[in-house]
Amino acid sequence: MGSFAGNRVSLALFGLGRMGLIHFENLQKNPNVRLKYLVDLDQEKANNLKDFHHLDETKVILPQDDHFVFEDPNVDGIIICTPTDTHVHIAMAAIKAGKGVLCEKPLAMTIESTLECYREATKGNIPLLCAFNRRFDPQIRDMYKKRDIIGQVQSIKTCSRDSPRPPMSYIKISGGMFHDCAVHDLDLIRWMIGEEPISVYTAAHAHIPEIAALGDVDTIFIVLKFPSGVIAHIDLSRDCKYGYHQTCEMFGENGNLMSDNPFKSAVHFAGVGGTVNDVIHHSFKQRYSEAYQEEIAHFVALLTGQVDKCCVSPNDTLRATFLAQAAEDSWKSGEVVDLKEHFQKIFKNNSNDPLLW
Amino acid sequence: MGSFAGNRVSLALFGLGRMGLIHFENLQKNPNVRLKYLVDLDQEKANNLKDFHHLDETKVILPQDDHFVFEDPNVDGIIICTPTDTHVHIAMAAIKAGKGVLCEKPLAMTIESTLECYREATKGNIPLLCAFNRRFDPQIRDMYKKRDIIGQVQSIKTCSRDSPRPPMSYIKISGGMFHDCAVHDLDLIRWMIGEEPISVYTAAHAHIPEIAALGDVDTIFIVLKFPSGVIAHIDLSRDCKYGYHQTCEMFGENGNLMSDNPFKSAVHFAGVGGTVNDVIHHSFKQRYSEAYQEEIAHFVALLTGQVDKCCVSPNDTLRATFLAQAAEDSWKSGEVVDLKEHFQKIFKNNSNDPLLW
Amino acid sequence: MGSFAGNRVSLALFGLGRMGLIHFENLQKNPNVRLKYLVDLDQEKANNLKDFHHLDETKVILPQDDHFVFEDPNVDGIIICTPTDTHVHIAMAAIKAGKGVLCEKPLAMTIESTLECYREATKGNIPLLCAFNRRFDPQIRDMYKKRDIIGQVQSIKTCSRDSPRPPMSYIKISGGMFHDCAVHDLDLIRWMIGEEPISVYTAAHAHIPEIAALGDVDTIFIVLKFPSGVIAHIDLSRDCKYGYHQTCEMFGENGNLMSDNPFKSAVHFAGVGGTVNDVIHHSFKQRYSEAYQEEIAHFVALLTGQVDKCCVSPNDTLRATFLAQAAEDSWKSGEVVDLKEHFQKIFKNNSNDPLLW
Amino acid sequence: MGSFAGNRVSLALFGLGRMGLIHFENLQKNPNVRLKYLVDLDQEKANNLKDFHHLDETKVILPQDDHFVFEDPNVDGIIICTPTDTHVHIAMAAIKAGKGVLCEKPLAMTIESTLECYREATKGNIPLLCAFNRRFDPQIRDMYKKRDIIGQVQSIKTCSRDSPRPPMSYIKISGGMFHDCAVHDLDLIRWMIGEEPISVYTAAHAHIPEIAALGDVDTIFIVLKFPSGVIAHIDLSRDCKYGYHQTCEMFGENGNLMSDNPFKSAVHFAGVGGTVNDVIHHSFKQRYSEAYQEEIAHFVALLTGQVDKCCVSPNDTLRATFLAQAAEDSWKSGEVVDLKEHFQKIFKNNSNDPLLW
Repeated sequence: MGSFAGNRVSLALFGLGRMGLIHFENLQKNPNVRLKYLVDLDQEKANNLKDFHHLDETKVILPQDDHFVFEDPNVDGIIICTPTDTHVHIAMAAIKAGKGVLCEKPLAMTIESTLECYREATKGNIPLLCAFNRRFDPQIRDMYKKRDIIGQVQSIKTCSRDSPRPPMSYIKISGGMFHDCAVHDLDLIRWMIGEEPISVYTAAHAHIPEIAALGDVDTIFIVLKFPSGVIAHIDLSRDCKYGYHQTCEMFGENGNLMSDNPFKSAVHFAGVGGTVNDVIHHSFKQRYSEAYQEEIAHFVALLTGQVDKCCVSPNDTLRATFLAQAAEDSWKSGEVVDLKEHFQKIFKNNSNDPLLW
Repeated sequence: MGSFAGNRVSLALFGLGRMGLIHFENLQKNPNVRLKYLVDLDQEKANNLKDFHHLDETKVILPQDDHFVFEDPNVDGIIICTPTDTHVHIAMAAIKAGKGVLCEKPLAMTIESTLECYREATKGNIPLLCAFNRRFDPQIRDMYKKRDIIGQVQSIKTCSRDSPRPPMSYIKISGGMFHDCAVHDLDLIRWMIGEEPISVYTAAHAHIPEIAALGDVDTIFIVLKFPSGVIAHIDLSRDCKYGYHQTCEMFGENGNLMSDNPFKSAVHFAGVGGTVNDVIHHSFKQRYSEAYQEEIAHFVALLTGQVDKCCVSPNDTLRATFLAQAAEDSWKSGEVVDLKEHFQKIFKNNSNDPLLW
Repeated sequence: MGSFAGNRVSLALFGLGRMGLIHFENLQKNPNVRLKYLVDLDQEKANNLKDFHHLDETKVILPQDDHFVFEDPNVDGIIICTPTDTHVHIAMAAIKAGKGVLCEKPLAMTIESTLECYREATKGNIPLLCAFNRRFDPQIRDMYKKRDIIGQVQSIKTCSRDSPRPPMSYIKISGGMFHDCAVHDLDLIRWMIGEEPISVYTAAHAHIPEIAALGDVDTIFIVLKFPSGVIAHIDLSRDCKYGYHQTCEMFGENGNLMSDNPFKSAVHFAGVGGTVNDVIHHSFKQRYSEAYQEEIAHFVALLTGQVDKCCVSPNDTLRATFLAQAAEDSWKSGEVVDLKEHFQKIFKNNSNDPLLW
Repeated sequence: MGSFAGNRVSLALFGLGRMGLIHFENLQKNPNVRLKYLVDLDQEKANNLKDFHHLDETKVILPQDDHFVFEDPNVDGIIICTPTDTHVHIAMAAIKAGKGVLCEKPLAMTIESTLECYREATKGNIPLLCAFNRRFDPQIRDMYKKRDIIGQVQSIKTCSRDSPRPPMSYIKISGGMFHDCAVHDLDLIRWMIGEEPISVYTAAHAHIPEIAALGDVDTIFIVLKFPSGVIAHIDLSRDCKYGYHQTCEMFGENGNLMSDNPFKSAVHFAGVGGTVNDVIHHSFKQRYSEAYQEEIAHFVALLTGQVDKCCVSPNDTLRATFLAQAAEDSWKSGEVVDLKEHFQKIFKNNSNDPLLW
């Protein structure tokens, strides 16, 4: 990694799609970040951004020229927002060059290559942060901190409904709803409960014909059982008309703790039809705007050594991915999946790898 | 008063208009009440009610025959819901006959005759309950009980907006908005604060031309100052489209305590336009349905001697009426009214009457 | 049945336990009901109630003397609130005597005798109302009426958490949490969706050792799949510290419709610790007080012929009971239950009975 | 003004107190701003900020050296957050040097010098933005845009309660509660209603002895009347324990539109004591964080010519200041103030100045 002037880091941003632009904006607002490279096929878009924001020191390069990034001793880390199938290649190159990596989910297309990637990063002691964005959301963190208030946990529920419905072009390459959506809720529940589940059951359906035609689903209910007796439920939809619904509830011996949907504003109108509150946030960009800023702040803190430990461990990424796969498998078989057995089946020879425990 | 079989009382109901019917319904549900007389000009209406409810023991009589009620030794009390200008005549006759009285507000058309009525009741030790219904509302009573939580009170606000807008036929005979509406809020504030105010200022307007034509108003703001430094605000409207708005807030050194509008139900719909809660209650009948039942229960308890003291004292009725008059006078003059001076002006020789202190 | 004077009916109340007292109170408030008999082992309790409420015409009798009720030509119907194992015997006697029956749930200890009971009632054209109280709740009915607003239904969720935790003495004789609690949510979902489910999966646990010791559970999650693709989730707890939680949500192509928990009052306090709303209702008695009144009104309307059709059909009772059994069986086996197969297994020769279809 | 590279502007920030630091942070996040000068007596504080944020191009200077700012042809505008009694001097120097000015409220200690300042800015066509921050709050702007929904306005209410209670050191130099607090609500009401009021009445009190000792107050109620018949109420407190309460309601023929207090988060806990929502924002910094960013964006847009007209006109500042004075005068006299007369009394020879109309 490069040397740090104060706590400032130099970064390269790969990809200027939907997530890339969100990160780009947040990088502009973060006084501890210098953006050294913008890497994208669309050079015009990249150059326009550079000019509009007066980024005199930022270089715009093509993906095929990304070796300049890895060879540049002043680059501390990279952010990967490129199409999913390119993630692992870029991440591995960066790790080998000693650059920290913040990578959009999923890190790789298979659990094996995800594991491989983490092994490389662990070996080199390189920060590798897989972007489970909800872990950085101030409201969800607040709930996490307060969770002891409910005493012994008895059940947990999340509900995540996407808004707007993603375009079919995205859904086709999303990896399927289990890996694209459910993985976040599975990670959230593991984190909140602090246990690994023992079984999973999934009921799912495609109400939207185009999605059915892909063999994917748009509505998912997942039930998990945990060794302590806690039971969990996940409710997912691809198409929520009233906004981006993202809630989590934990019920325990003392009561119920909930992270509810914040309203866009506290303006409301009382008229003949009742009291109308404002809408909730339209999409992930608005709902998690602070989470994305915190995520980058955590990445910067990892790069500068202010923080030792990545808050999303290799285990977290691998287990959430495994659970998403198991949930999908339950849907396909229509049966309850025993997770102990399934773990062996999926990880085979790797199942004793310390990164998994 | 008649003799009591257990705690049961025998009553006569005068008037089967809007409030009369509400009381009639509640009397049916109260197992401690026998309804002995229905007194109304409209004999058909009264007889239909009697038949529909199988009230074999109830006699229907005309107002001019009400001496039968007063002469009946088995009648314990009467409820007066007749037109305002008949209240005091009926109440005095009942009191003189030793019957307890629950009288809709106002007890009389003038402060003098109100005072007269209370003197007669006090002399004979006869229960005389002027129907300030909000004092019996469970929610408002709950707020009253919790009020110490805010510590030293600094300000208080009420907002009472009528729904639906009363018909012009009613507004014409209502005694004006100050005596018909403001008097409730003035009573509520006096009760909550436990002090008598020292000045009042009113701003008011008629936005509705028909009401302006009567010389009445439809929108009133009143500010009161109290000796302790507490200041109060009352916000009134005759025509609230979203339901019967009835709120009260007290602000003090520890926070804010509020009796808010209950929703008709907890059903809500989240759609493209936001989250729509149910409406609040449509009118006083729904909002104060429990209050009216409690009011009758208090009256029964007074008649049977289970409760010694009427929770609306002569002082309460007289002072609230006086304040309504002073607020109206402030509106007419456009000036702040000094209540000490005004008290002398209104009560003259009676200003030292113990019933006022 | 007896003859009706107007729309008034004469009833006998069997059992003065928890539910019996709730019905007793509501009978007092219903002007269309004459209470002719109170049947209970505890004669002192029954006589005290009779005296306190001045019920001169009501006879107090012992259960062993209940033939007086069945032989009395003036009795139109009976209400059964006795211990569960006596329900079917009393109901059958009443039906055979031509008296209408309102029976607390469950009607019988087995599906066979439930079916038997309905056959007898159907044969004699006798009203037989099994008390699925939530169907009469104004708020839930309001949600039912509004359900088309969400368009094509995609999923439905209920959450029912008991408060206070019932005493162990009750839990022991409750028939287990599936038949005591889940049956209500299963009925509610069937009613809202208007379809029969095709599979059920249950995860459940006993967090409370005394309940575990009984072989019963205190926390249940149930997932149902429907032919249309709708998926359902039920969340149940025996021990909710913040009050009696009873919610239902339907999610569809246009949004989400919810019957939420009403607060006990709209009083709230804003202080250093946040804004504290009032509690929700403490228990079923408060939450469903109107539902119980409506239930009796429906029973009276059935007895007088004002309403033709019982809103809880034999099919409703039988299917909800069957689903509760299937959900319990899924919990015991840990497997998903195919409901078509299970139906044959449970109903055997009766599976083509028209009462089931 | 300097020349613009793209839409980027160069600014100097005067004062690094409470508001200065808020603006400083927002300037760091605004990619269109170069911060050229930090002007403050506390050079160490200024240099630390410069270093921490890697502001290599920013010069730190003493107030007495501020001529460097005014002489620098590359400075486009300045932001004034110094003590109140220095505002007008700095503003006038900047305007004369052709620099745009964003000045914290109040612009000057007297209405005369405020007017003088605006005359100078108008003459030179220099942007002069007096920081009525609420006008830039997205929620309040949203309410402003939606206000037609209520139809003919009948009344308007604001409630602004400060949190935490400012230190006595601040209250002493605040100019008094009317000029420090009420002026914001008066501006807000004028803006929402679009009319000038005709009378004002104030009731106020100091519940806190230290504030009473200063001859200032901590609790204010103001009532305004408008020519259209609209009546307004303002409720102010210096010391609100549950957070920074900032609400505005407009009531009209179709209903009520409200800008309510947003909660800090949508996390809530349901326990034995009720449902506890999160706190509202602690203070102005949190509540108006977006407003301050929008305020700077508006200032930048004025400096670059993207926007022609300052959204806070000279008239707005002068009228709000006048009304704060009139409200204070009403409190002192205990009488209603006729605003037409008072306008002549305050503005004397200037009362026909076009800047006032």
